[in-house]
Amino acid sequence: MGKNAIVGQSGGPTAVINSSLVGVFQAARSRGAEHVYGMRFGVKGLLEEQYIDLSQTLRDTLDIEILKRTPASYLGSCRYKLPSPEEDVELYERLFSILRKLDIGYFFYIGGNDSMDTIAKLSDYGASIGSDIRFMGVPKTIDNDLMNTDHTPGFGSAAKYIAATMKEILRDSLVYDTRSVTVVEIMGRNAGWLTGAAALAKAEDCEGVDMVCLPETPFSVQRFLERMDRLQNWKKDIVVAVSEGLRTEDGTYVCELDGHEARTDAFGHHALTGTARYLADAATKQLGCRTRAIEFSTLQRCGSHITSRTDITEAFQVGGAAVKAAFEGHTGEMVGLTRISNDPYQYTTELHDVHTVANLEKKVPAEWITRDGVGVTQEFLAYVRPLIQAELTPIYVDGLPRHIYIR
Amino acid sequence: MGKNAIVGQSGGPTAVINSSLVGVFQAARSRGAEHVYGMRFGVKGLLEEQYIDLSQTLRDTLDIEILKRTPASYLGSCRYKLPSPEEDVELYERLFSILRKLDIGYFFYIGGNDSMDTIAKLSDYGASIGSDIRFMGVPKTIDNDLMNTDHTPGFGSAAKYIAATMKEILRDSLVYDTRSVTVVEIMGRNAGWLTGAAALAKAEDCEGVDMVCLPETPFSVQRFLERMDRLQNWKKDIVVAVSEGLRTEDGTYVCELDGHEARTDAFGHHALTGTARYLADAATKQLGCRTRAIEFSTLQRCGSHITSRTDITEAFQVGGAAVKAAFEGHTGEMVGLTRISNDPYQYTTELHDVHTVANLEKKVPAEWITRDGVGVTQEFLAYVRPLIQAELTPIYVDGLPRHIYIR
Repeated sequence: MGKNAIVGQSGGPTAVINSSLVGVFQAARSRGAEHVYGMRFGVKGLLEEQYIDLSQTLRDTLDIEILKRTPASYLGSCRYKLPSPEEDVELYERLFSILRKLDIGYFFYIGGNDSMDTIAKLSDYGASIGSDIRFMGVPKTIDNDLMNTDHTPGFGSAAKYIAATMKEILRDSLVYDTRSVTVVEIMGRNAGWLTGAAALAKAEDCEGVDMVCLPETPFSVQRFLERMDRLQNWKKDIVVAVSEGLRTEDGTYVCELDGHEARTDAFGHHALTGTARYLADAATKQLGCRTRAIEFSTLQRCGSHITSRTDITEAFQVGGAAVKAAFEGHTGEMVGLTRISNDPYQYTTELHDVHTVANLEKKVPAEWITRDGVGVTQEFLAYVRPLIQAELTPIYVDGLPRHIYIR
Repeated sequence: MGKNAIVGQSGGPTAVINSSLVGVFQAARSRGAEHVYGMRFGVKGLLEEQYIDLSQTLRDTLDIEILKRTPASYLGSCRYKLPSPEEDVELYERLFSILRKLDIGYFFYIGGNDSMDTIAKLSDYGASIGSDIRFMGVPKTIDNDLMNTDHTPGFGSAAKYIAATMKEILRDSLVYDTRSVTVVEIMGRNAGWLTGAAALAKAEDCEGVDMVCLPETPFSVQRFLERMDRLQNWKKDIVVAVSEGLRTEDGTYVCELDGHEARTDAFGHHALTGTARYLADAATKQLGCRTRAIEFSTLQRCGSHITSRTDITEAFQVGGAAVKAAFEGHTGEMVGLTRISNDPYQYTTELHDVHTVANLEKKVPAEWITRDGVGVTQEFLAYVRPLIQAELTPIYVDGLPRHIYIR
């Protein structure tokens, strides 16, 4: 049995993914791992033997505190789908030989549904060749779309960023005594968890947004404009939150309705950007008032200067729980968060077969979306609110939050 | 001599304009003003007799603390240029009769160059009719483009938001082991103060941005792309900050180069949005790599969850200094901040004839822009750095920063 551990980060960054990394690192060290290696750029980097020894880059406990507050993936990340062993057995042989060379007994991968696919494939292949390396998944995604976990680390902080910023946008949008429309675009290709979080802005001290449009509900531009027109009969400033992934009845992305060539990223995914711009322009034409389009873009996932302490703590804990499980003999599993109650908010961690998570997507349930399709229910809010509670103060140096990075 | 004071907020909101409002309110009360009125929606609202009594809406000192942390203009704002008395003397008569009715002795207006034009006109007209009302300007603008003040309240917090967020974007942009270009668009139509502040991101813990492109320097898309191409020979991820107001040699806004009809706001101003999008698209074509366009949009001016304590304190102080000056007999002046030294940072307030401020614009001096036109000098950074120091912690309630608003 190998005596070292290795950990990787995969998929899109979050504000708290490094807290999970710290959780894995500290738990593995305290359970006796001699070295805890970090793969650079996920499993893709590991295949090129890009890795570091975390004990060497994290010099002391202050480094570790700062790493918890540093956004994005400290180790680097990849968007890489492992081929199956049938497609490329050589790749698996190469990877396992690298793991043997490093004397790895424990392999941790922090990521979303694609990353859990990696854990599933590696643990299956490991079993097929009689390897005793234990492979564990640590959940992470701002999108909150993983199965078998009440919610995902990363979501709470993104939701808090969105709700806090939405409150500020609302204050800003209402200052003039003229009609206006502000459309804010929020991440979430197929799942509206983050867009729905914009509804948290409504409170004693804030009017809240006028609509939240989730990708779960087919979208009609015409109905949207009519609704804004009606709203402006009694309130001059309209602020709405829309998902980047809104589609019309026939499945066309709203951001592609302007006839522009769809922008695709290096992986062939449609880059969903421009939904707010399209709707704001349509509102300008139809309503003839001042409009503004705002995209939260990467800010919502990397805004580590305002994180949820609940989230950052949970991110840390799922890392530790994965290590505990691996050292106790588990493999091919993901740590999930199970909610015990909303009020008081209580949760625990449980293990799930990673095959029941990989490649699946959890959407906002229909009963949590209001009948008119432009709001979320009290149940939705009661679910999200505990996840944005409390703060972890940034460590400010010379006026700016301090981070740590690999030179 | 009227025994009451009135205060208004005008122009674009900032994260700290309400701190100036609190400064005026508290100083006027402590100097014996019986009522301190707030004009709703600036002088435009006042002309329609829209005002409130601030002692009635601010119930206690906690309200006042929260108001300091509330972004945007508590009283509402306007973008309204007073006609001259020659053009519309009736308007002036109406306005002064409202002021008499409210028994106003002191009139304060918090705003930028347009707002100082309002103070200039009102104090001139007041003098011409022998009014004893004292009119004082309180500086405010994230753009930092006011004359006769070392810097403007609002700038420091916007600069801190930009630098802090830029650090986060840098961390986020560098996670993949593939080439990428991120273009971030920052406010400042003609003055590059805020865009230059993106250069503050560079520190021990951050690589910093690769270029800052200010509107003071004529811009060439071709040179910009060539430079990125060269940069990618030795570093894979490029992050640049560009001003929304970039123009080519012939004066065309970069955001209008795509041939799109320019978006104009209700005031006929070109809405300068799309510079980053245009440049990111151009980079995709030329460099064939993953690109991303990010607009800070209103977030940079309303981000009160991360403010500079230096800025918020100065905003408070210029409000108080304006009241002191008015009660001591001054009129037709603006309070300016005068820097005594950078290190240690020391400053004082001075009074300036408002005519020497109104309608003028202070740009970044040419000697503070690097010769290659894509950077700022150490002098620029030494000038900005003191203004982003220290924080004012938001008051979090139920996970979100608390605000106050007029119902």
